[in-house]
Amino acid sequence: MRSDLATWPLGMNEEVLMARAFLNRVAEPASIPVWDMVRRDGPVQAAEAIRAGRVDDCVSDATAARAAHADPLADLEAAHRHGIRLVVPESDEWPHFAFAALEATALRRLETYRSGQRRHAEGGELIPPLALWVRGTTDLASVGVRSVSIVGARAATPYGERVARELASGLAERGFLVVSGGAYGIDAAAHRGAFAVAQETVVVSAGGLDRAYPPGNTALFERAAESGLLISESPPGSAPQRRRFLTRNRVIAALGTGTVVVEAARRSGAMNTAHHCVGLGRPLMAVPGPVTSAMSVGCHALIAAESGAARLVSDVDDVLLMIGSAGDLPVDPQPPSPPDLRSRLDQLDQPARQVFDGFPARAWVHPDRLAVRTGLSPLAVIRALPILEMSGLIEAADGGYRIARATRPTTSTQAP
Amino acid sequence: MRSDLATWPLGMNEEVLMARAFLNRVAEPASIPVWDMVRRDGPVQAAEAIRAGRVDDCVSDATAARAAHADPLADLEAAHRHGIRLVVPESDEWPHFAFAALEATALRRLETYRSGQRRHAEGGELIPPLALWVRGTTDLASVGVRSVSIVGARAATPYGERVARELASGLAERGFLVVSGGAYGIDAAAHRGAFAVAQETVVVSAGGLDRAYPPGNTALFERAAESGLLISESPPGSAPQRRRFLTRNRVIAALGTGTVVVEAARRSGAMNTAHHCVGLGRPLMAVPGPVTSAMSVGCHALIAAESGAARLVSDVDDVLLMIGSAGDLPVDPQPPSPPDLRSRLDQLDQPARQVFDGFPARAWVHPDRLAVRTGLSPLAVIRALPILEMSGLIEAADGGYRIARATRPTTSTQAP
Repeated sequence: MRSDLATWPLGMNEEVLMARAFLNRVAEPASIPVWDMVRRDGPVQAAEAIRAGRVDDCVSDATAARAAHADPLADLEAAHRHGIRLVVPESDEWPHFAFAALEATALRRLETYRSGQRRHAEGGELIPPLALWVRGTTDLASVGVRSVSIVGARAATPYGERVARELASGLAERGFLVVSGGAYGIDAAAHRGAFAVAQETVVVSAGGLDRAYPPGNTALFERAAESGLLISESPPGSAPQRRRFLTRNRVIAALGTGTVVVEAARRSGAMNTAHHCVGLGRPLMAVPGPVTSAMSVGCHALIAAESGAARLVSDVDDVLLMIGSAGDLPVDPQPPSPPDLRSRLDQLDQPARQVFDGFPARAWVHPDRLAVRTGLSPLAVIRALPILEMSGLIEAADGGYRIARATRPTTSTQAP
Repeated sequence: MRSDLATWPLGMNEEVLMARAFLNRVAEPASIPVWDMVRRDGPVQAAEAIRAGRVDDCVSDATAARAAHADPLADLEAAHRHGIRLVVPESDEWPHFAFAALEATALRRLETYRSGQRRHAEGGELIPPLALWVRGTTDLASVGVRSVSIVGARAATPYGERVARELASGLAERGFLVVSGGAYGIDAAAHRGAFAVAQETVVVSAGGLDRAYPPGNTALFERAAESGLLISESPPGSAPQRRRFLTRNRVIAALGTGTVVVEAARRSGAMNTAHHCVGLGRPLMAVPGPVTSAMSVGCHALIAAESGAARLVSDVDDVLLMIGSAGDLPVDPQPPSPPDLRSRLDQLDQPARQVFDGFPARAWVHPDRLAVRTGLSPLAVIRALPILEMSGLIEAADGGYRIARATRPTTSTQAP
């Protein structure tokens, strides 16, 4: 593990990693009380309290069954043997940009939850992961910047598989990462399409990454691990239970700039992912098909919905029209030179400008603190941060943000 | 001809019929200056002026080429030999209800036209027909009350033809009239679907009704004439020119409570009909298909349009959801009994109520006069009239309207 730990940035330490591994093991994904506790107390203190049983009933209900038996070091070591690393929010590899919408939605849910309407809050699963198990060469932080989630039916038709393959190829050709699950049908077709023109593809699995599920897709998983990315919220050894497929779907929706449903039965996992996509405020797209095909019923329902939930897309150009503005952000922005700074600031919308003005000159600052300093809601702050980060005006690390070096006042002692 | 004339209602006379036949022969469909002149001066006076050349340049441009050679009596006699009758706005058989939206749109266009922006006004073809040639047993006035226009590509796929057939059957089963053109492909499939469960179907042709175009659909035309309706704006002997297909399409759109596009290439006649449907403010629907099919490109473009031009429909239930409220009006309303009158009035919206209040006790009144009496715009009056007519509160004939007998004050000398 030490070789991995050495790559963590300033402030990241083994204690945090162990705490996150513990939390990830004891709580099922998308537990709002556990996420809230970690957010308030930090992972180390939260993990200690859970292990000691010094927690409220809600957190206890979500963690007590496994707290005594959890062995995070064993999990990390088992992962290491399979080439799997644990990526945590305190790491530079955490996909802050992709998860900004998830954070914002979770903060909204939290208000409902805290106001005592717990039952309502529990129904929604749009709570950020506490950590992600990852295998592969792609930087997880780069996922969600220019990426499209392509989802659909396991029992896809040849038509659906062809469309998924062509969409994925076209998007990969234009430099977009393709994100999908690891199932047969549309998922596998999308990954194959991406492989056909690019090295990378991103597989989000519902079970532990030490084994492929379904086993028939083992070769696909191996290929993604070699030059793309395998992601799971579940520790190695976890079986892909039904509940985990549903919580997994929110990760797929969150990692895509937009989500395309290629084929879906009326009630299906793909419809669940589509629902999450809408919940995150991300563009949802659906591919039409013959009205005589049961596999297109879900897509048509999404397109025809009163609320206009999904936009009909026929090809890559349609998809790019929908996600263009979001997907065309630079992948690796250069820090702005001082004369450039003014023009970057001028391009910001009012809340983003306000958030930037709320930053201390050099110190790291937490979003909640920025909300206090600016008088904006935590939601508004969380929404503005990725914009500022992508503009190169601020940088994120260690769960906080600060003004990017090149942007700081010239009193900085930092060498250029 | 006399036997037909004997069926015209009070006030209808041979002079009007001859004038309309003349106007129909000399002007191509959808001529705004001719329609406007007929509207202002009445058909008899307008026809005399045109024949004598006492008209402005715009009307002259639209009529001079044929005015000298027109022989309306010959046209009416030729039609009679083929079992074709001429239906005019002064007749009880005129589809006032179906054409209300067309009248309203034309009045709007007229304002643009009169204000001198003639070029803009000429582009739009949503001008009511001056008369319609009709063959068949169905009452033309009943078309447009519970009817759906089904349109699509000539070069339809087997998938498209199947969907058109099934939609038409389903709608006919539920008592809706199917309206379409007379082409191969979707048009023919829709009529076949209607025939499969009902006697009636409505074919709107671009050429004269004395011959079927295309000839391969002769049997279909004959069957529609036997128990449905053949409609054309062109006199017998007219060739189905390209321009006539385009003006024909506005009649198809106007005669449907809503229009369904089943398959359409990006630039096609069906797209033109769809455009007219939107222009009339009627519900436009489109059937999706494989994105790999060129014949579904137009449908997908309509569904995906920024303005949400067309609603995606997969089956008859979807269509009924879209047109339900409009299509569920009674086909043949009974005149209300006096105690019933109050409740009918209470159900009217404000403009309709106002228009009803503007009626003289017993005299016939023209929409323009109602506008003056009520202070409402001609557009608002034209929109309210079909509602009042379908409620059985007023009746239409001879180009005017009056309070229905059963609704009139008890001072009426009419026997029950």
